[in-house]
Amino acid sequence: MRPSGRQIDEMRPISIETGVTRHAEGSCLIRCGDTHVLCTASIEDRPPPFLRNTGLGWVTAEYGMLPRATHTRMRREAKNGQSGRTQEIQRLIGRSLRAGVDRVALGERQITIDCDVIQADGGTRCAAITGGWVALRLAVNKMLKAGDVVSDPIVDHVAAVSCGVYAGQPVVDLDYPEDSEAGVDGNFVMTGTGRLIEVQMSAEGATFSRDEMGTLLDLAGQGTALLVEAQKAAVA
Amino acid sequence: MRPSGRQIDEMRPISIETGVTRHAEGSCLIRCGDTHVLCTASIEDRPPPFLRNTGLGWVTAEYGMLPRATHTRMRREAKNGQSGRTQEIQRLIGRSLRAGVDRVALGERQITIDCDVIQADGGTRCAAITGGWVALRLAVNKMLKAGDVVSDPIVDHVAAVSCGVYAGQPVVDLDYPEDSEAGVDGNFVMTGTGRLIEVQMSAEGATFSRDEMGTLLDLAGQGTALLVEAQKAAVA
Amino acid sequence: MRPSGRQIDEMRPISIETGVTRHAEGSCLIRCGDTHVLCTASIEDRPPPFLRNTGLGWVTAEYGMLPRATHTRMRREAKNGQSGRTQEIQRLIGRSLRAGVDRVALGERQITIDCDVIQADGGTRCAAITGGWVALRLAVNKMLKAGDVVSDPIVDHVAAVSCGVYAGQPVVDLDYPEDSEAGVDGNFVMTGTGRLIEVQMSAEGATFSRDEMGTLLDLAGQGTALLVEAQKAAVA
Amino acid sequence: MRPSGRQIDEMRPISIETGVTRHAEGSCLIRCGDTHVLCTASIEDRPPPFLRNTGLGWVTAEYGMLPRATHTRMRREAKNGQSGRTQEIQRLIGRSLRAGVDRVALGERQITIDCDVIQADGGTRCAAITGGWVALRLAVNKMLKAGDVVSDPIVDHVAAVSCGVYAGQPVVDLDYPEDSEAGVDGNFVMTGTGRLIEVQMSAEGATFSRDEMGTLLDLAGQGTALLVEAQKAAVA
Amino acid sequence: MRPSGRQIDEMRPISIETGVTRHAEGSCLIRCGDTHVLCTASIEDRPPPFLRNTGLGWVTAEYGMLPRATHTRMRREAKNGQSGRTQEIQRLIGRSLRAGVDRVALGERQITIDCDVIQADGGTRCAAITGGWVALRLAVNKMLKAGDVVSDPIVDHVAAVSCGVYAGQPVVDLDYPEDSEAGVDGNFVMTGTGRLIEVQMSAEGATFSRDEMGTLLDLAGQGTALLVEAQKAAVA
Amino acid sequence: MRPSGRQIDEMRPISIETGVTRHAEGSCLIRCGDTHVLCTASIEDRPPPFLRNTGLGWVTAEYGMLPRATHTRMRREAKNGQSGRTQEIQRLIGRSLRAGVDRVALGERQITIDCDVIQADGGTRCAAITGGWVALRLAVNKMLKAGDVVSDPIVDHVAAVSCGVYAGQPVVDLDYPEDSEAGVDGNFVMTGTGRLIEVQMSAEGATFSRDEMGTLLDLAGQGTALLVEAQKAAVA
Repeated sequence: MRPSGRQIDEMRPISIETGVTRHAEGSCLIRCGDTHVLCTASIEDRPPPFLRNTGLGWVTAEYGMLPRATHTRMRREAKNGQSGRTQEIQRLIGRSLRAGVDRVALGERQITIDCDVIQADGGTRCAAITGGWVALRLAVNKMLKAGDVVSDPIVDHVAAVSCGVYAGQPVVDLDYPEDSEAGVDGNFVMTGTGRLIEVQMSAEGATFSRDEMGTLLDLAGQGTALLVEAQKAAVA
Repeated sequence: MRPSGRQIDEMRPISIETGVTRHAEGSCLIRCGDTHVLCTASIEDRPPPFLRNTGLGWVTAEYGMLPRATHTRMRREAKNGQSGRTQEIQRLIGRSLRAGVDRVALGERQITIDCDVIQADGGTRCAAITGGWVALRLAVNKMLKAGDVVSDPIVDHVAAVSCGVYAGQPVVDLDYPEDSEAGVDGNFVMTGTGRLIEVQMSAEGATFSRDEMGTLLDLAGQGTALLVEAQKAAVA
Repeated sequence: MRPSGRQIDEMRPISIETGVTRHAEGSCLIRCGDTHVLCTASIEDRPPPFLRNTGLGWVTAEYGMLPRATHTRMRREAKNGQSGRTQEIQRLIGRSLRAGVDRVALGERQITIDCDVIQADGGTRCAAITGGWVALRLAVNKMLKAGDVVSDPIVDHVAAVSCGVYAGQPVVDLDYPEDSEAGVDGNFVMTGTGRLIEVQMSAEGATFSRDEMGTLLDLAGQGTALLVEAQKAAVA
Repeated sequence: MRPSGRQIDEMRPISIETGVTRHAEGSCLIRCGDTHVLCTASIEDRPPPFLRNTGLGWVTAEYGMLPRATHTRMRREAKNGQSGRTQEIQRLIGRSLRAGVDRVALGERQITIDCDVIQADGGTRCAAITGGWVALRLAVNKMLKAGDVVSDPIVDHVAAVSCGVYAGQPVVDLDYPEDSEAGVDGNFVMTGTGRLIEVQMSAEGATFSRDEMGTLLDLAGQGTALLVEAQKAAVA
Repeated sequence: MRPSGRQIDEMRPISIETGVTRHAEGSCLIRCGDTHVLCTASIEDRPPPFLRNTGLGWVTAEYGMLPRATHTRMRREAKNGQSGRTQEIQRLIGRSLRAGVDRVALGERQITIDCDVIQADGGTRCAAITGGWVALRLAVNKMLKAGDVVSDPIVDHVAAVSCGVYAGQPVVDLDYPEDSEAGVDGNFVMTGTGRLIEVQMSAEGATFSRDEMGTLLDLAGQGTALLVEAQKAAVA
Repeated sequence: MRPSGRQIDEMRPISIETGVTRHAEGSCLIRCGDTHVLCTASIEDRPPPFLRNTGLGWVTAEYGMLPRATHTRMRREAKNGQSGRTQEIQRLIGRSLRAGVDRVALGERQITIDCDVIQADGGTRCAAITGGWVALRLAVNKMLKAGDVVSDPIVDHVAAVSCGVYAGQPVVDLDYPEDSEAGVDGNFVMTGTGRLIEVQMSAEGATFSRDEMGTLLDLAGQGTALLVEAQKAAVA
């Protein structure tokens, strides 16, 4: 029934390749099916201005899509400025990752997670969160090894998956053909222990019930658990 | 326990004054406690370019805040461009209102809902959705009366409320002192029949369980029911 | 003869409601007929950079119009940047109000007057100046009461009215139907003692004589005297 | 008494050199003392969009200052965008020149007057108007000669001068040292027959009486008469 | 003597992997040592506006660098606009590739080559040209196969290499440590038959003789010959 | 054979008029045939931020073209931002002039060379470099005279000329009719002793051989020698 032939609760194949760029403190290329996102973590020894002399650190994110990551070429944001959608996504990524970080333990530093979509097939923001966490983890490992931080500022995994109602059926991990048809869909960001960080469900020209929402949350819980396993394997 | 002395499930006083500006096809000033938003609906007889010759109409929204709507004066967006937050909010308002509209019945037209915050005390995006629906309803009434549309393109009410966890307690309709302290909060957009349109829950530096989410959904259901009553009274 | 049925020297009804927003140090909603402008004064304890260590204060203004303040919806300046007209108007408001202020007595502070047009029917810049002075007066009263300034930095009232030649007749306080037809019109900013601060007369596709200019100045003198009375009543 | 040793009613030496650039349909370099402005007129055979199919033409102006036209180098507007001051000035120039043009006789065309300040010593906008008229006159002469227009669309001269109160004395044609000290100053745009087109008087931190205004108007009338003579000589 | 231990005339290892993204009509990932550039070709069936109804096609290029492609993270151009350097580079890439294309044979189409630097170690613009040609070749192959073009619009290979004077020695294919130290360097774009398309030599704080220039041209000729071989192998 | 009737190796008449503006530390108006560029040098006593406390000075350049310097009026860059072409040119001018300057002898200062094209007929960037050097020389002379620098920071002349292949013939100093037809052209920046600073050869839709390049370099050497003579005469 799904265009890809997947089961309702079947995730796309997940692959997380680490150490893919030479300069970043942490990096990975995450592939969720045909959605490929390059994630890098860059450490700066100064916090952003609003945190000077607070003892707190910051994790922020920026998101971009290569112009031909999509079926039809999109205009390059460097020429036209970031769209509202892009800004919304990068705010979500940053907020999600901060939920898994102890900012006191991090100290007065800033880590910027860059998530650049090389190829898009739906679910890019979720892949960016899941891969972004891996880049962050690797960068923090380097700091721990170098003794730059004493206790580990990362308190839990952070992973995300999209779920939605496609052709009347709740499904997990929507690809682009599903995403563009779904009346209701959502992004679910969860921790390694299954707690929720962010739920963004929206309906374009449709509505949904609490029961449907419950089913999607169930699917999301199973999906993110698999993503957390993939993260563990990647950073091992 | 709440700074305002309200009960956990107690909404702020709601007032919706209609016909407040002379030029707009529909308008209201909605007051949710000390949050005051001026909402106007403007009808254009042409749809946006991407809908030409589709037979479909469009409802969109723009959001702004007067510089001194807030405790400390904010920079004027006309001088600096719209922030990511503003763009995110106006996309939400438009998407929410479209969920209550039959775009075929609307025909090839565009209705723009302008939501300008005159005074802010938390929950401005929710007040904008609730008041925006009233402006939209009044503008559509005018079209129905003039015979510009044959069947009513509005299929249901759309109203929104914020809920969150403040001082460990789930509460409804957060004001600014609560909003700035809450680790978890969300915006819930619902129809007049209690179905969900949009759920946006997020945690800044915290996480939440499905049970907590359920409690917030309960509060939101009760809150939006009251808002729908206020909408009915306003457009009667 | 005038579209509104007013006499040649008849002003529109003036109403100035103070204390209309909760956060600003001073505020009013001024109504000159169907032109409604919300004016707020915001005090900052630091002067702008070019006045550091000079002992002088500064009064500046920003002006905006809600998109549907006008008959046809205008594009939102937050999306497109401030037009030349907007910048010209806000420079005029600031310059006019500074003429009524002793900047030594004000001390190294900045007061920003925000003038936002809620509904427009001609003469918005004049209403903004007249209402802006009230917001400024109220903010300064608060400073005097708190002992933040010792002597009153406000030396005189500042009020403004437009006059023009409509259908061959000099008239005072043009509304939009007159303004859009007048070949010659001007804005006159005056003090409470009847001295001039700013005269901006211009002709679009027409010219005028010194005699006509004299008549308009007479009308402006009478008009601003009435506005000053309204200011006195409002701040009493 | 004046820094330059000039009499109160003494204009700076005026020189208008025509035909200074090869490509423009009309051009001149106007020198009012040490203020030098290059003015060109460019004819386009299409009117601006808002005048299509109206039978009317348009005259518009753009104004710029070379970065080192001034004592201290200013930032280049091509890098930072046009300031509010620049936009205000170019709107004034266009409006002033249109007052001397019969837009029906001009027909559906646009003439753009570019005024670029090569060297500044006060009064640049007035020099731009006076020189801009000469460029316009020359371009229209070319059209008349070529038979592109049948009757002359220029109905009168347009010239401008600044006057102000310097050291307590009303003076004409302020140079930069006077302009930067004057509490009250104004720009006066007049026709060849002595009628007024635009009066812009303003006071920075001061006020003025109607009598003072009258004296400045007298000075302006004498000054623009001389400028009109210079225009006549230049285009003869 | 070279930091990498390479011989004076030794190129870095070249690898060109094709078909790396699913959506683009042609794509490759080119690696010149540690400089990695992703190149995609996107075909549009309409030419740019200035070529409508001319029978001619167009090839253009856009260039970008991921923020952490470099040793220190750079600001994201989507947030700040394209730098002068970026614009200069993408103009060079487009001009270079057009030199190898018969625009009549291409017909009224536009092909956009996107070159995004994944990892930078000097010579990114040269790698972009060399890889961009491969993406272009593959996209044109697809058009030939589909019968969209009748005769092959590609007339020759286009490849580029940088050469410069490092530590007093002329060297080929500078990496970043060399590039940042070289007083004289240049980019040489050549065809498959060894003709020149573009030579850009510049000296920052130094000068060079014609003899030195000759030596660099010799090195460039050998280097681009190797690159052309790699192109041939990649598209075979 | 050349549209102007010039010989293949014949430069256009060169004129360099110095001291043309009153405020700049150095200035000239350079005329290469019908290409006229106003060049000014502005000294600032602070270096740019990246050179603070290095003991080094900086020379930079900005370039602009008056809208009607060209045959058809161009859009004003102050309204639209600097084009890629403009940025490329001003980077070239700055880089070229720095090659003739000893930045240690200059000390922690910045000299900005503004090059504004009054009239264009091809070769504007070359005229800007040649005239820019004269403005720089004059400004430095003033500093030497005032004792602000002890030893002369200018180490050599810098001059530039364009050469290209027009109608199959290599020619020097292309004017606009030649420039717009030439398949191959280049800009050559040289010192007073005939060494090269910058070579930028490019082909739009064509290619060239090393022999052709040699011929163009010969022509450029003779042309810049003449320009250096003109510089010497101008600053004598």
